Amino acid sequence: MKIGIFGTGIVGQTLAGALGAKGHDVMIGTRDPQATMQRAGASGATRTPFRDWHDEHQSVKLGTFADAARLGEAIINATSGSGAMPALEGAGAEALGDKILLDVSNPLDFSKGFPPTLTVCNTDSLAEQLQRAFPRVRLVKTLNTTTAALMVNPAAVGGGDHTMFVAGNDADAKAKVKGWLGEWFGWRDVIDLGDVTNARGTEMLLPIWTRLYGTLGSPMFNFKIVR
Amino acid sequence: MKIGIFGTGIVGQTLAGALGAKGHDVMIGTRDPQATMQRAGASGATRTPFRDWHDEHQSVKLGTFADAARLGEAIINATSGSGAMPALEGAGAEALGDKILLDVSNPLDFSKGFPPTLTVCNTDSLAEQLQRAFPRVRLVKTLNTTTAALMVNPAAVGGGDHTMFVAGNDADAKAKVKGWLGEWFGWRDVIDLGDVTNARGTEMLLPIWTRLYGTLGSPMFNFKIVR
Repeated sequence: MKIGIFGTGIVGQTLAGALGAKGHDVMIGTRDPQATMQRAGASGATRTPFRDWHDEHQSVKLGTFADAARLGEAIINATSGSGAMPALEGAGAEALGDKILLDVSNPLDFSKGFPPTLTVCNTDSLAEQLQRAFPRVRLVKTLNTTTAALMVNPAAVGGGDHTMFVAGNDADAKAKVKGWLGEWFGWRDVIDLGDVTNARGTEMLLPIWTRLYGTLGSPMFNFKIVR
Repeated sequence: MKIGIFGTGIVGQTLAGALGAKGHDVMIGTRDPQATMQRAGASGATRTPFRDWHDEHQSVKLGTFADAARLGEAIINATSGSGAMPALEGAGAEALGDKILLDVSNPLDFSKGFPPTLTVCNTDSLAEQLQRAFPRVRLVKTLNTTTAALMVNPAAVGGGDHTMFVAGNDADAKAKVKGWLGEWFGWRDVIDLGDVTNARGTEMLLPIWTRLYGTLGSPMFNFKIVR
């Protein structure tokens, strides 16, 4: 399957690495591919400089946001919260078309330190902002409630016995994404919360997620809905 | 143990019934006890008129907020979000003293329908508002992330294998509350998130809680932190 991934940070790297290892045709999109390959340092969520990561994952292509959007049968937005809208704008409405977009981003504001606050919540969400700006895209909010290593390998804690969510307006897109989450990564319990406004619920899990990260001293945990 | 409970709705009734059944000396506090006993109807969270419930639970006393606060070695705030500050103000700083207050309330705004929004979140919380207004009270935010029937009987789903949280500024109060949650109700996995600002995390679980309630068609579920 051809998959475009926006974002060169730890989330984009982890998703691209896992999907590439499964034989998928993966392209990571970034604003300026040449600059990304020249950058020696790592900052923020980019714990490993992309060029060092890419040395180990040469089957993953690098292109512009528009290149990745055009290549992908599905697109994954793995940018930071502040990078999400610029990435979609960089790709452009034409390249995005009506493709399925898995939105993994969270509207985190670290400007006042840790734990971060949200830049949007309660009566709106980042997913809704993106969906409003690109109404043809079939956005499915998912994977944003757990750390990158668990997104691609839920079995790493509790034998994978925990929960993932999807929210979005397009029923067919959500059904496909639920299937992919199982096939790609082994997610077994995926709850469909309903339309894109329900992304408010999953994005608002981040305030307790970041606190649990601090309290537990590790990001290797996830929510299970016990019922 | 002497326990004062603010709130005559389903949460107050459930907590008072369970604690009374264990032999504790329980008083429910309300604004106007006589009016509460005369009320025939039920509205909002008060699914059973208090006087009908009380017929079956006559060992539970009814008094004013101040009466319940004075009696309690511990106090539980089981009001609605909008009822929380008036309840504490009704009790008064003198009656509350430096007692331990388990704050179970959530700042839910149902004025625009279901799912509700929060009246405060992200950079503040209802627990912080209450703690600032009554700085001597040793507030511990807890039990607000699950339905009343599970608060007092976590074993009713998943054999009790799921998680409760505490947040508050007083370490001794939190240690006592963790003990009580186990002794009173059988909670086994209680995570201490830190000071009262961490109540933002647990109150912001409500947007996904209310959506899961809608999606699953039952409130009998809870979050487990799998790690």
